[in-house]
Amino acid sequence: MLHKNSTGNFSILEQNAFSKDQTLADPHLQKLVDERHQTTGPMSVLFYQEPLNLVRGDGVWLFDHTGKQYLDVYNNVQSVGHANPKVADAIHQQFLQINCHSRYLNQNLHRYSQRLLNTLPDNIDRLVMTCTGSEANDLALRLAKDFTGKQGIIVTQCAYHGNTEAVSAVSPSSMRSGQIADSVQTINIAQIAAADDPSAEFLQQIKQAEQQLKQAGYGCAALLIDSIFSSDGVYADPAGFIKAGIKYLQNSGSLFIADEVQPGFGRTGFAMWGFEMHQVKPDIITMGKPMGNGFPVAALATHDALLQNYNNKQGYFNTFGGSHAAVAAATAVLDEIERHSLINNAKVLGGELKQVLITKLAEFDFVKEVRGAGLFLGIEICQPGDKHSAAPSLTTKIVNLLKENQILIGTAGDNGSSLKLRPQLCFTQDNMSFLVEKIEKVFNQIATEVK
Amino acid sequence: MLHKNSTGNFSILEQNAFSKDQTLADPHLQKLVDERHQTTGPMSVLFYQEPLNLVRGDGVWLFDHTGKQYLDVYNNVQSVGHANPKVADAIHQQFLQINCHSRYLNQNLHRYSQRLLNTLPDNIDRLVMTCTGSEANDLALRLAKDFTGKQGIIVTQCAYHGNTEAVSAVSPSSMRSGQIADSVQTINIAQIAAADDPSAEFLQQIKQAEQQLKQAGYGCAALLIDSIFSSDGVYADPAGFIKAGIKYLQNSGSLFIADEVQPGFGRTGFAMWGFEMHQVKPDIITMGKPMGNGFPVAALATHDALLQNYNNKQGYFNTFGGSHAAVAAATAVLDEIERHSLINNAKVLGGELKQVLITKLAEFDFVKEVRGAGLFLGIEICQPGDKHSAAPSLTTKIVNLLKENQILIGTAGDNGSSLKLRPQLCFTQDNMSFLVEKIEKVFNQIATEVK
Repeated sequence: MLHKNSTGNFSILEQNAFSKDQTLADPHLQKLVDERHQTTGPMSVLFYQEPLNLVRGDGVWLFDHTGKQYLDVYNNVQSVGHANPKVADAIHQQFLQINCHSRYLNQNLHRYSQRLLNTLPDNIDRLVMTCTGSEANDLALRLAKDFTGKQGIIVTQCAYHGNTEAVSAVSPSSMRSGQIADSVQTINIAQIAAADDPSAEFLQQIKQAEQQLKQAGYGCAALLIDSIFSSDGVYADPAGFIKAGIKYLQNSGSLFIADEVQPGFGRTGFAMWGFEMHQVKPDIITMGKPMGNGFPVAALATHDALLQNYNNKQGYFNTFGGSHAAVAAATAVLDEIERHSLINNAKVLGGELKQVLITKLAEFDFVKEVRGAGLFLGIEICQPGDKHSAAPSLTTKIVNLLKENQILIGTAGDNGSSLKLRPQLCFTQDNMSFLVEKIEKVFNQIATEVK
Repeated sequence: MLHKNSTGNFSILEQNAFSKDQTLADPHLQKLVDERHQTTGPMSVLFYQEPLNLVRGDGVWLFDHTGKQYLDVYNNVQSVGHANPKVADAIHQQFLQINCHSRYLNQNLHRYSQRLLNTLPDNIDRLVMTCTGSEANDLALRLAKDFTGKQGIIVTQCAYHGNTEAVSAVSPSSMRSGQIADSVQTINIAQIAAADDPSAEFLQQIKQAEQQLKQAGYGCAALLIDSIFSSDGVYADPAGFIKAGIKYLQNSGSLFIADEVQPGFGRTGFAMWGFEMHQVKPDIITMGKPMGNGFPVAALATHDALLQNYNNKQGYFNTFGGSHAAVAAATAVLDEIERHSLINNAKVLGGELKQVLITKLAEFDFVKEVRGAGLFLGIEICQPGDKHSAAPSLTTKIVNLLKENQILIGTAGDNGSSLKLRPQLCFTQDNMSFLVEKIEKVFNQIATEVK
């Protein structure tokens, strides 16, 4: 069955948000919270029931104002490590030399672009650098609509693709109320993954969504997905399950946009890009977050014809996209990924971590499933003894208990019942032991309490 | 008369673009151009008939691959100077310490926000940091539409407000073909400035645009303008000419969004913000470009009620907005502006430069007018002896000749007939002498040729 139109599920995030009416025991934190509410106001969602004031980072570690250290298993931007000195120095050197926009020639921009294009499928021959993943997805939607002459978009039920108006419209997970537009149809990855034949179910849901877009007169311009289905709860298996559905769409004149902001740059361990696991060939690939390890860098890759088509109608320029400093940061990140074989590290350690978690968590009756690929894992939590009932409060409790125990993770999924684990790619065996020990401790505590 | 709906005028930019079919004498440049076309492709517009390969910056100076140095009178991002070491060091130190998103508490973010809010009118009490000015304007449009319940937007005929889908829709100057939507109405600043009573003409055009939006059923959500009218050709005078029109709109339930990406952070010399010159009170203020001197930082400032209203429907988060490094860069920029009294420098030197140019260029019959405020000046070029005929080719010729003579400037305006001058705010008397000398030389050369 297809969920025709999702309502918002921003509550996933807010379930673990600090409530602004709460009073904090630590006066330092209370002061910061007050200052924040007086300046940033309601837009500001703070993680954790007691928010964190992080003041230092080092590799996989983050430190708060009291000196307490946390293993960061959440932040996927600094994937070559917090406070990575190679990246910091590359940015510094570039800022001391020159940092302009890309309407002047810059050899480093061309070299970086070529190096990145070399990691992408043969049909992808152009790179447009933007500043944020939102901007890349915003442009991707326009390229797809203009090229196909169609207006409809298929996304997943809990999709998040960014924060511009156009991209928010295809991001059900950022809505607090209301319904997404009829020109956006959703597929349900949790249902697909649970089906006897996920590939057939994916194809079936895609066909249904496409049909609905056709009948409504929009047509289907593109399927826009993140191949690790991060905000849907992290789904990686079985490899190739999205292939038939994507082929069907591409044969029907729709495009496939792979949003690699989450799975890209080696995180899923299989390869540089998440979609490679599924042996599919995107028409447009967007990327961002870890691309500059904290320096705002993002990009869109596609083939020349799509750009030409758009370019005839509209000019596009991005002041910060492809600036000297952006290129320096992004180059340093690729160097770090290669120098430390981080994709292989994600594969080996991620694979091991997944197996360990599957084995060690089997005894807990509130654990439904361990999923994921490389260093992008999900643990779905359920009501004790009932795999069919979501347990958002319990999930939130685990996230906050893990924080007390020096582990930072997040939540995901339609009902906020999945734990989302994304350690830095420079994660080590020791880090893994630390993480598993803390997870076991917290899960045992929960098990005692729920008995 | 009101220009109902503008067609695109992206050609302003392209008129000074390198043509990709051209062959370059310098093999180094040719190689870079080839590499660029093979990677970035058609999206890439390169400035100048012979593009520049800039490899070093220092204060107001930029250096190309041959060592030739240029006085930068164009780039308004590095307004506290190219390769500013204070900004570079602040970013470096922050990257070496910690650089995370804003869902953790960060005292420096609050302090920066408060410091910036202190420079803004009393009714503005909230700051939302984004990564780019495009993102800030994209959000501003949504806030205005949601708050007013109206959909129409008024912009200027050659407006440019950014590169997202929503913002491109209110940016006639980025269109290559087609017409802007009926929900966007334009006013013509060149006409307004030329009227006997610019204030009355501005009010009249605003009323007409609002009426058209009402009649078409959209209503007028907001007037979105850059108070120096940068892409329209740089119009600053007379001070206050936009006041009556804006008051009328605000009394009619529309909002005024001041896009301060161009005039903000002291550039117009009068004050920190461009709109202050006109004694108007925006409901939303957006800012960007020079905010981080090359580090991507932007923001939206408004009052709490507007954010609350939007926030009830939709969550907003910006991964890179308000990150530790963004705040460090932005703080260093404010420090530099204060330390070197750069707003006053823009006022004094900009005022002097304008007077010198008015005096020295009076003899040239192809100069129509010198305009602007602070260090943001426009020189409108016309056909020799005919102030009513635009001269885009001549303007392009001047821009390229000035480049040969070590001066980088740009063009603007509906017909690309205005030279746009935006020196760094750390511009000196010596720099001004150099600039004026070169302008006189090039203008004399032109005068000889057109005789």
